[in-house]
Amino acid sequence: MIGEKLESMLDGSPVFEPGTVWLVGAGPGDPGYLTVNALRALQQADTILHDALIDDRILELARPEAAKIYSGKRAGEHSIDRDALCARMVDLARSGQRVLRLKGGDPMIFGRGGEEILKLAEAGIPFRIVPGVTAGLAAMAVATIPATQRDVNRAVVLATGHAASDADETDWAALAGLGQPLVLYMALRRLDRIAGELIAGGMGRETPLAVISSATRSDEDILVSTLGTVSEDRKRHPIEPPAVVVIGEIVTMRERLLRIAPAFAGALA
Amino acid sequence: MIGEKLESMLDGSPVFEPGTVWLVGAGPGDPGYLTVNALRALQQADTILHDALIDDRILELARPEAAKIYSGKRAGEHSIDRDALCARMVDLARSGQRVLRLKGGDPMIFGRGGEEILKLAEAGIPFRIVPGVTAGLAAMAVATIPATQRDVNRAVVLATGHAASDADETDWAALAGLGQPLVLYMALRRLDRIAGELIAGGMGRETPLAVISSATRSDEDILVSTLGTVSEDRKRHPIEPPAVVVIGEIVTMRERLLRIAPAFAGALA
Repeated sequence: MIGEKLESMLDGSPVFEPGTVWLVGAGPGDPGYLTVNALRALQQADTILHDALIDDRILELARPEAAKIYSGKRAGEHSIDRDALCARMVDLARSGQRVLRLKGGDPMIFGRGGEEILKLAEAGIPFRIVPGVTAGLAAMAVATIPATQRDVNRAVVLATGHAASDADETDWAALAGLGQPLVLYMALRRLDRIAGELIAGGMGRETPLAVISSATRSDEDILVSTLGTVSEDRKRHPIEPPAVVVIGEIVTMRERLLRIAPAFAGALA
Repeated sequence: MIGEKLESMLDGSPVFEPGTVWLVGAGPGDPGYLTVNALRALQQADTILHDALIDDRILELARPEAAKIYSGKRAGEHSIDRDALCARMVDLARSGQRVLRLKGGDPMIFGRGGEEILKLAEAGIPFRIVPGVTAGLAAMAVATIPATQRDVNRAVVLATGHAASDADETDWAALAGLGQPLVLYMALRRLDRIAGELIAGGMGRETPLAVISSATRSDEDILVSTLGTVSEDRKRHPIEPPAVVVIGEIVTMRERLLRIAPAFAGALA
């Protein structure tokens, strides 16, 4: 029954016009976090350029005749050739295709979507941004950690742990001094260094910390630790990217919530 | 055709078990930003307790026999009676119902979802959190403002502008000193005061600022201004809640992107 209602929602506007690019967020991983608008995009696209972390079940929702082009990092590459990727999107759009750029999470946060639409803009290609559920907030939810809680925090900081160079470093001391939770994307590889800088910036070694790996996916994994012990704890409990790291008192809400009642906050697949 | 694939996705697990509560994000407004998991919840719920900003078209996706209970603020009320609401959810769940608590945006950020699941946990009611597209990031997307952009920012701060009392105030000076964009929820009513505190904290009066009202809805409206002039600009361009306020250099990306190419980043409805 809901299928019919959905079908009518999907049949409605907007039309994915030929010669345009839609930059679409696919959500944290599980196809259940696709939005209706992302489904609409998949239903109409001629070519899909997708990142590494897009589930096959999501790509299967595209039209069978749509071209699917892997556009993530190759093994051994430091990063993708974004200029080449953008040039390809421009060429495809100019040839009259409906081009779907599909990114994990939300396309405009730590996904370098802004750089891609800037290239499209410079080439005069019309584009549309379709927001998705961002990985950081989804990871907190599956770990039963509220992003905000009255009497605990009034703000939450989303930050990247990735740095292309030392000059590209975040001011961790400033973030340490805020007294608000930090939600770090792509921080696992450099977590020892970041934890050290946060401690040097005045954040207590006992500050609760959670690493949430592959949130909403079948290999989802959660490590609860502290800023001072996470380096040791990771030896006992190896945890792999992609991961979100949450740092702050808010992490204690997880234990408080799960100690009293069963919860099943994770992936719905 | 996509309807069939979706139907099979919707028919799959998880089952909304009787006697449980799902806390579900409905996204920023337009039904196109519902997730598949939110649709699954609507398809199965016996009772839906929803906030003020949930579009009628979303509620129409529920089963016809589901009870729909408005659970937002009443006119003249400072806030809802959360204890009574939580007690009602507990009672409904104990009577064997599938209880859907439907909130705008993501349920765990500035929606007080954490307080609600804490009450459920204390009562021993199993609950599930279903993340949604948060209003702050959706508002930036519809305004063609990336949340992050290389060489502009490495973090973004999501903060509430609501304060129940003076003691409940955010440390605006600390946030002003970060040099990262601020995305403020529920800040419109107190924006003059907040802008003043950010300027006192060292943020330049010329800092770009955007107010995005009713993002993704038919009455969506965007005001671009600066920290020092927003108070005056709002007299010329009245703009109403619900709104998200974005403050920082990242706001200039909007003009940069829209000057060169057409974009159609807004609601897809």
